[in-house]
Amino acid sequence: MLIAKVIGTTVSTIKDEKLHGRKLLILRQTDETGAPSGKPYVAVDTVDAGIGDLVLTAAGSSARQTNITKDTPVDAVIMSIIDSLEVDGKVVFRKS
Amino acid sequence: MLIAKVIGTTVSTIKDEKLHGRKLLILRQTDETGAPSGKPYVAVDTVDAGIGDLVLTAAGSSARQTNITKDTPVDAVIMSIIDSLEVDGKVVFRKS
Amino acid sequence: MLIAKVIGTTVSTIKDEKLHGRKLLILRQTDETGAPSGKPYVAVDTVDAGIGDLVLTAAGSSARQTNITKDTPVDAVIMSIIDSLEVDGKVVFRKS
Amino acid sequence: MLIAKVIGTTVSTIKDEKLHGRKLLILRQTDETGAPSGKPYVAVDTVDAGIGDLVLTAAGSSARQTNITKDTPVDAVIMSIIDSLEVDGKVVFRKS
Amino acid sequence: MLIAKVIGTTVSTIKDEKLHGRKLLILRQTDETGAPSGKPYVAVDTVDAGIGDLVLTAAGSSARQTNITKDTPVDAVIMSIIDSLEVDGKVVFRKS
Repeated sequence: MLIAKVIGTTVSTIKDEKLHGRKLLILRQTDETGAPSGKPYVAVDTVDAGIGDLVLTAAGSSARQTNITKDTPVDAVIMSIIDSLEVDGKVVFRKS
Repeated sequence: MLIAKVIGTTVSTIKDEKLHGRKLLILRQTDETGAPSGKPYVAVDTVDAGIGDLVLTAAGSSARQTNITKDTPVDAVIMSIIDSLEVDGKVVFRKS
Repeated sequence: MLIAKVIGTTVSTIKDEKLHGRKLLILRQTDETGAPSGKPYVAVDTVDAGIGDLVLTAAGSSARQTNITKDTPVDAVIMSIIDSLEVDGKVVFRKS
Repeated sequence: MLIAKVIGTTVSTIKDEKLHGRKLLILRQTDETGAPSGKPYVAVDTVDAGIGDLVLTAAGSSARQTNITKDTPVDAVIMSIIDSLEVDGKVVFRKS
Repeated sequence: MLIAKVIGTTVSTIKDEKLHGRKLLILRQTDETGAPSGKPYVAVDTVDAGIGDLVLTAAGSSARQTNITKDTPVDAVIMSIIDSLEVDGKVVFRKS
């Protein structure tokens, strides 16, 4: 899984029928302290994440292993909102 | 999913039989404002996208979860045309 | 899918039994005009491609969706020979 | 598989129901001597790995081939703790 | 598939039960002449490869399509030992 920050939202009228009612958020991968970098990607939200949240995303066929994404043409899913991250014994991120 | 811009088309006579009648478009990944960069890739169009459109593409086995791509040897699918993108509360892209 | 140029061939005696009789070609990814760059990779040929041809390759489980590659331990397949590529309304590649 | 070092832990209250009771660790890929570099990623621990351990992780659908990760929306799993690595006839890493 | 050189071995006592008796080798991807570069990765050997051999590896779910790796949490398999590589009509690698 990747640690990623939710940075935005997408709006789309024309889409595969299985995507209707799905919330697709824009994310940017972060390092282990929550600092974002790199190109954005889009994932289906299954945990009611909000802008600014640090989350975990799963990619590939694993993205289809939730009730919301089963048999859906999506390759990334937000399946966890991060409360805190600890590296080498120190808390490096805590959700505010 | 990746945000990508449709930049071109491919023509092919000799191909796997399951690809007959499929429209394969050339795309380039973009950032969250729709600015393209990087190498191009090719995806099956399932939403009647046109040159210049900003779209979402799904990769891997997820690309085969549409009626058009089921059991087909394709690893990328266009399954949504983007109307608008909003980042940190501001609209950064709107389809013209 | 990736646009790639066929640059060579592999010969192998010791291999998984499902690979016997399969033609494995060496490719290099290209940009949208057919100019190659980057590291080479190897794919199973299902369309009788030749050295110098520009082709499309599908990766991952999608590579196993042809009659030739079903249930085979291969992660890339050539499933189309490109006749021409058109970008922004101009033909940028035509098979000679 | 990737050789990776366990560098931290994640805590998460809101998550997919299949993730309850799963331990998700933060890792960083290493070279063949165990020296880490690059961006971190997160994997489910199935072998009771600890901070500082060098481990092997499997990605994609392969990450769901353990009893602990079956049908779970995770795309990386720790399935082995490395005792030692030998390169070109010399031991380059030994677990302390 | 990737062309890769076998550079080492891994030893591991604590691991998923399906990995018992499996030989996991360390590899480095090469170019089309067999020159290695980049980060190492680990694959299950199914063809009795040795240190220094040039091999082909398949990744992802394709890595589980051999008798030895079926249903196993591994994402890379060595399924062929390369005898020779020919690029643009010239032999650029021959197994010694």
